[in-house]
Amino acid sequence: MNNFDFHNPTHIVFGKDRIFDLSSLVPAAAKVLILVGGASAEKTGTLAEVRQALGARAHRTFSGIEPNPSFETARKAIEMVREEGFDFLLAVGGGSVIDATKFIAAAVPFEGDAWDILLKRGSNITQAVSFGVVLTLPATGSEMNNGAVITRHDIGAKLPFRSRHLFPLFSILDPTKTYTLPVSQLANGVVDAFVHTIEQYLTYPVNAPLQDRFAEGLLQTLVDIGPRLLAATEPNYDDRASLMWAATLALNGLIGAGVPQDWATHMIGHELTAQYNIDHARTLAIVLPAMLQERRVQKHDKLLQYSQRVWGIHEGSEDQRITAAIHATRDFFERLGLPTHLGAYDLGQEAIDLTIRQLETHGMTRLGEHGEVTPAVSRRVLVAAL
Amino acid sequence: MNNFDFHNPTHIVFGKDRIFDLSSLVPAAAKVLILVGGASAEKTGTLAEVRQALGARAHRTFSGIEPNPSFETARKAIEMVREEGFDFLLAVGGGSVIDATKFIAAAVPFEGDAWDILLKRGSNITQAVSFGVVLTLPATGSEMNNGAVITRHDIGAKLPFRSRHLFPLFSILDPTKTYTLPVSQLANGVVDAFVHTIEQYLTYPVNAPLQDRFAEGLLQTLVDIGPRLLAATEPNYDDRASLMWAATLALNGLIGAGVPQDWATHMIGHELTAQYNIDHARTLAIVLPAMLQERRVQKHDKLLQYSQRVWGIHEGSEDQRITAAIHATRDFFERLGLPTHLGAYDLGQEAIDLTIRQLETHGMTRLGEHGEVTPAVSRRVLVAAL
Repeated sequence: MNNFDFHNPTHIVFGKDRIFDLSSLVPAAAKVLILVGGASAEKTGTLAEVRQALGARAHRTFSGIEPNPSFETARKAIEMVREEGFDFLLAVGGGSVIDATKFIAAAVPFEGDAWDILLKRGSNITQAVSFGVVLTLPATGSEMNNGAVITRHDIGAKLPFRSRHLFPLFSILDPTKTYTLPVSQLANGVVDAFVHTIEQYLTYPVNAPLQDRFAEGLLQTLVDIGPRLLAATEPNYDDRASLMWAATLALNGLIGAGVPQDWATHMIGHELTAQYNIDHARTLAIVLPAMLQERRVQKHDKLLQYSQRVWGIHEGSEDQRITAAIHATRDFFERLGLPTHLGAYDLGQEAIDLTIRQLETHGMTRLGEHGEVTPAVSRRVLVAAL
Repeated sequence: MNNFDFHNPTHIVFGKDRIFDLSSLVPAAAKVLILVGGASAEKTGTLAEVRQALGARAHRTFSGIEPNPSFETARKAIEMVREEGFDFLLAVGGGSVIDATKFIAAAVPFEGDAWDILLKRGSNITQAVSFGVVLTLPATGSEMNNGAVITRHDIGAKLPFRSRHLFPLFSILDPTKTYTLPVSQLANGVVDAFVHTIEQYLTYPVNAPLQDRFAEGLLQTLVDIGPRLLAATEPNYDDRASLMWAATLALNGLIGAGVPQDWATHMIGHELTAQYNIDHARTLAIVLPAMLQERRVQKHDKLLQYSQRVWGIHEGSEDQRITAAIHATRDFFERLGLPTHLGAYDLGQEAIDLTIRQLETHGMTRLGEHGEVTPAVSRRVLVAAL
């Protein structure tokens, strides 16, 4: 096991009807800016519940944070917070709203050009406005970590940043808030959590059995509940709860503590989203199976373990079992309705050329747990995913 | 899945040579009281490392905290902190030293009789002195939770308490610090972590697959590493690291979030320790197998799952598989050198009578996940463990 630090102070408030806990969770004297995406938080009644729980606290709502939240939109909110003196931010939504809120929280007290936060990956953040979360879309895990990703459209960049100042003070996870989600977003959530787990698990062994078992537990659970979530005619509370908790645990620092991490699939996926506006999870579904095939020699030992423990594959040669596990992964994504080829989005060789150029522009030239995923390797992965 | 809160702000600092991080972890202006058990922290050189890392900070050492730390000893430390104005406590040791430190941290600013903290199980704690941990003995998980247990000898009581003010600020977990432990303490640590996990897992199903998988991962890992830890002629770093991290994760609130909990075995075990000074883990090894046998009807579904997933038992009728799992549990403890019968400690019917009286005195009359473990049930468990 490698040395590690684990420090995650976010208070998780999980379950039915927990939104009303906002009345005690938000500081009593806070002046609150509520941040939301589109109209759904208003339509579903969630915003009304939030406002009721905030009681006498001064508050306003900033809406319009888009999927893959943009620097441009965040800038408007930053200005609003500064001008009107909000001292508490409340993200009501999914990963996009939370990520934007993190950026806004860091940028409000930041001196200089806020884009520098992204160029320095957050290492220059020294303080942030306090913020909390009401999660309505389980997927990214942003509700219990200190990282975020922001997109800048004028230069086609989607860049990650993190800071110890950016853990939510609390996150309210009410599984019933997922009941109004379209099936495609549930499927995206399953795949997003699945690939987050894979990026921290499917590398090389370092004798860290607990991290492996926890990761495998997440993967097994997602494999179990994914198809059920899509097939259910009525929402099943426990499956929604398992998805919500799985997505959170997949990226709260726990399963990645003390083990190597990969993240090459994510970095390539980010470029596809930035250029072609493909949902984050859908880019992962395209890249991961091809990545595992490309890296099957370097990932041999963990692929075998994955094959056996997650997919229950015990028959055949080692190579056959690895092939079967990669096939099972691809098939899982496809069954959830997420295509695993660029062709499904009408993308071809030109898209690959552009993606590779963008990876180079963003310094993403030594990706993966060994730093061996060079642009040439990324290109082979994308060609295999055509 | 049941509603839950999960909030654990302790910063874990894990790995080789991390004691030197104390220089940045302890507040620079702190006046530090170091708390230790016997002479081993001095003899092994750990205290010298601690003092070196504290640098110019004023500090003194309070030694003599016994296993199953006593109210009487803690009182001496409380007086010393008050008189000399220490504002930071540093526990260097295992669960006993950490538990005593938590009690001292709460009692120093407490007005009135400190014993009231235990009578109210900590609900009357409103503040505490800040404290950190250097863990040298993995077992209780106290390094990453807000609970503790204190023994009062004059009335033969061993009582638990907890408070949100009692999370360690940080805990340094260096697996090499376990290298000087006797084998019996390693075995105790394995069993302690194992039973902590069981108390949060082996109840009844509530459709919480992640909590189940994580608990099973802990149990499987302990089953794997336990015999290896005892058989090794030289300490194996990774196995020590896995034990240390397992003991922490077994009781940091995560696997118990959103699921029923039992703890009857612990409450009965505490009485055995208070009366007969048997190591905590050793009392658990006596009580648990008999408890599982006694409660096999109520725990039927989870016992079957435990049988299959932890022990790999797939053959036989349901009853046979459950019997085999209970047998495997007993055998595991015995192989680690922990007897599973009262007779091994020369205890008989009189000890049972006294233990039941003490349970009644301490209000432990409706134990277990259903509150069905009455004194009569506890008596049957102990008789079966004769």
